[in-house]
Amino acid sequence: ILYLTGGMSIPDPKQREALIKQESSMQTGGQQVLTDAEQRLNARLLKMKQDEVEREEFPPAMHFFKARELIRNSPIFKLLQKMPKGGALHLHDFSMVDVEWLVKNATYRPHCYICFTSRSVRFIFSSQQPKPLTNCSSWTLLESLRAKTVNTTDLDNSIMGNLTLFTDKDPEAVYPTQTVVWSIFEETFQAAYGLVTYAPVFKDYFYQGLSQFYMDNVMYLELRAILPEIYDLDGRTYDRAWTLKTCQDISRQFVANHPDFVGVRIIFTAKRTINTNKMLKVVEEAMALYRDFPDIMAGFDLVGWEDGGRPLWYYRDALSLPVERGVPLPFFFHAGETNSQGTEVDQNILDALLFNTSRIGHGFALTRHPVAKEWSRKYGVAVEVCPISNQVLKLVKDLRNHPAAALMSENHPVVISSDDPAIFGAFGLSYDFYEAFVGFGGMRSHVGSLKQLAINSIRYSSLTPEEKEKALSLWQRRWDKFVFENAF
Amino acid sequence: ILYLTGGMSIPDPKQREALIKQESSMQTGGQQVLTDAEQRLNARLLKMKQDEVEREEFPPAMHFFKARELIRNSPIFKLLQKMPKGGALHLHDFSMVDVEWLVKNATYRPHCYICFTSRSVRFIFSSQQPKPLTNCSSWTLLESLRAKTVNTTDLDNSIMGNLTLFTDKDPEAVYPTQTVVWSIFEETFQAAYGLVTYAPVFKDYFYQGLSQFYMDNVMYLELRAILPEIYDLDGRTYDRAWTLKTCQDISRQFVANHPDFVGVRIIFTAKRTINTNKMLKVVEEAMALYRDFPDIMAGFDLVGWEDGGRPLWYYRDALSLPVERGVPLPFFFHAGETNSQGTEVDQNILDALLFNTSRIGHGFALTRHPVAKEWSRKYGVAVEVCPISNQVLKLVKDLRNHPAAALMSENHPVVISSDDPAIFGAFGLSYDFYEAFVGFGGMRSHVGSLKQLAINSIRYSSLTPEEKEKALSLWQRRWDKFVFENAF
Ligand SMILES: [Zn+2]
Ligand SMILES: [Zn+2]
Repeated sequence: ILYLTGGMSIPDPKQREALIKQESSMQTGGQQVLTDAEQRLNARLLKMKQDEVEREEFPPAMHFFKARELIRNSPIFKLLQKMPKGGALHLHDFSMVDVEWLVKNATYRPHCYICFTSRSVRFIFSSQQPKPLTNCSSWTLLESLRAKTVNTTDLDNSIMGNLTLFTDKDPEAVYPTQTVVWSIFEETFQAAYGLVTYAPVFKDYFYQGLSQFYMDNVMYLELRAILPEIYDLDGRTYDRAWTLKTCQDISRQFVANHPDFVGVRIIFTAKRTINTNKMLKVVEEAMALYRDFPDIMAGFDLVGWEDGGRPLWYYRDALSLPVERGVPLPFFFHAGETNSQGTEVDQNILDALLFNTSRIGHGFALTRHPVAKEWSRKYGVAVEVCPISNQVLKLVKDLRNHPAAALMSENHPVVISSDDPAIFGAFGLSYDFYEAFVGFGGMRSHVGSLKQLAINSIRYSSLTPEEKEKALSLWQRRWDKFVFENAF
Repeated sequence: ILYLTGGMSIPDPKQREALIKQESSMQTGGQQVLTDAEQRLNARLLKMKQDEVEREEFPPAMHFFKARELIRNSPIFKLLQKMPKGGALHLHDFSMVDVEWLVKNATYRPHCYICFTSRSVRFIFSSQQPKPLTNCSSWTLLESLRAKTVNTTDLDNSIMGNLTLFTDKDPEAVYPTQTVVWSIFEETFQAAYGLVTYAPVFKDYFYQGLSQFYMDNVMYLELRAILPEIYDLDGRTYDRAWTLKTCQDISRQFVANHPDFVGVRIIFTAKRTINTNKMLKVVEEAMALYRDFPDIMAGFDLVGWEDGGRPLWYYRDALSLPVERGVPLPFFFHAGETNSQGTEVDQNILDALLFNTSRIGHGFALTRHPVAKEWSRKYGVAVEVCPISNQVLKLVKDLRNHPAAALMSENHPVVISSDDPAIFGAFGLSYDFYEAFVGFGGMRSHVGSLKQLAINSIRYSSLTPEEKEKALSLWQRRWDKFVFENAF
């Protein structure tokens, strides 16, 4: 690939030009042939990016909590919002919808009780006074509490603060270590749990999640879902099959209402802290669900803080079950969401590939694993890159240093996703696209990179080849419209 | 290189073991065959590293100014100090010796005058009252000032503060941006200038520099030197030839006194801000010096803040002179010391290679340049990695994310150096070796990695093949002694 003139000669400007072009063509989207309109749009985008780069405060170099306002006002961001981005392939079920909706909508419903732990809050909906919860104050009906409160806005803001990591304070001071940030991160899930597992809220939340991503011009979602027990006001509970069925119904209803939305598929997840026996049972259940819900079930994954959990290899017996029984169950493992090197957890990337994972969640450590990297590239095992998540959870400070910048410089199979936008104070997919486009790409990435990222999100999804083709042509129509409307 | 079992099969533990070993063997030093004694030393080192990793505060993840005390007390660091590290190939002439020596020795010599600018200080040695300096207070004889000062320790500390970036305050607050840190960085050079360019101090400083690296078990130096005009008490000045000759004499004297020291070679440097005419003249001068001082002159380089300076390509006419005239002048370009992508400056890495650079100074951006990376690998153009410098000058915060971690995971040609240890509050090479060994390598790097880094520093030096062989066997004897004394 290199055109080398040997030792003692003066660089030839044409050769130099060719090498620069060659390197540029190797990046994600570097092979995309742009139409005239796309080239005009590109000129606009690069001018905007030049302005962005020259500003004193460069958002991708800043913590997202401090950069959000700057990004929101960036003309690039406004374009990215309008851009059809394809699918979001790395998302978690209870962090799709902004927390304001949870507070202003969910907690204002009747029969909503709240109690206070030393660090946070818990919720439950109940037709009668709920049974007390250990380590929590007595349950108070939120309606009564609000009636007694002078400033309900303050109360609501305080509740909201328990549901998100976002803060106006100095994030470095509030979240000094990975241990601290992960502990509070998991607290936010606990706080939302009683709200989002209440059947009526669960359904509306799911629909609202699709709406918010749809608003952000995302046409398809793959959701990591814990599929928890869902409950009703009278204490009745529903199992995973019910939950999956409900998700499927809502997804179909949403698609019926929005024909240019492709749908949702679910990756069922277990925590990477449970014991091996429990994992065996969960994998068995996952196989059954995959058999019974082939349309909506995409596969299986493990979640939770990787450095604080069991390595994949610890669960090798359970993860071998599907192959042993000849039963299909695709894996979509989180792996390499770590800064540790040479530890047992750091082997997760390689083990994910050995277990034939369909994609790698995060893969932050991939560039430090040459064998795994080559494998991922050769077999098209795409890396789900979630820039804001990696920054907020303290893997990297300046997003220009994110390893995905190197991966994208050589068109490694990657998709961009947002992991837990609600908890990070983001929305949909556009903020993460901004970080990738401006931060990873600098002045080098262009409209071809954006196009490629959108196409990748369909290509590396769990859709069938036919579904992918349909989704791609749907995306292409929306893309052409977007280009037409914004190229001038 | 991959042993793959296809799709549907359970991972074979033996295959997994083989892949892990394969990946480990691909890293820097992964091919080193360890003796029994080296293996015992390795066991000790890895145990120490395990302890280090498990501590709450992990030094490579912290700013060096905050981590220095922790590192200094680390048993790994103490071993690394004793370890023969080979050569230091990326150093600057006036940042070799700790600033305490400058203040406690140089400024206490007779005839030392000081004046105060709005931000810093300037010095001059003179037999009579020196001519006033613009933007500086009137010259005061430091001896008289000290006589009038109650607490000379405070005065000395305050002077020292102007000669280094090191601070006990929060470095993020003191140096919020690259612009700020580079501006103060260059101020420290200005402050030291009048001290180190005074002939008697210049000679002693140089000898002292060699002593300090020798004390840190470094056996060879390649120094980027601006070769400034040197002056005497009576105002007499000396040119570059005199300076080079002086360096050569002192180096020879030092080697005579320390037969296990190999020597010093000089890379003459110009600033990347001068105009093209001036650059033509400097390159001509460099060619002449290279011809006249073949023993000590190694080549030529450009220095200064890369993002704030001219790109290499801007000076293409001057840099083409040696080839045009058929006159040898090896280049050792700083390149890719940047977080920008796709800018003109970001092309420096490729241009350095097009100009046939012998090594790449920093090359922080290399992993984002696949063509340049392949070239550097294929032709053994080593990257001079200076971890602490890159952190202090705000390219990367957590050194585990330094791109050299990825480079070393695939045994890319790298050497470790310390750039400006005095200005960063470091000493010799051991602090940077610590960051590379513990930070880049995590639990993966081992005694073979250290060995390889030391060998690389000789292999990629500008020494002749014969000199390299001699240096290597000298190093090997010291290494064997080190292993013998520390393996138990
Ligand atoms: Zn995730
Ligand atoms: Zn340097």
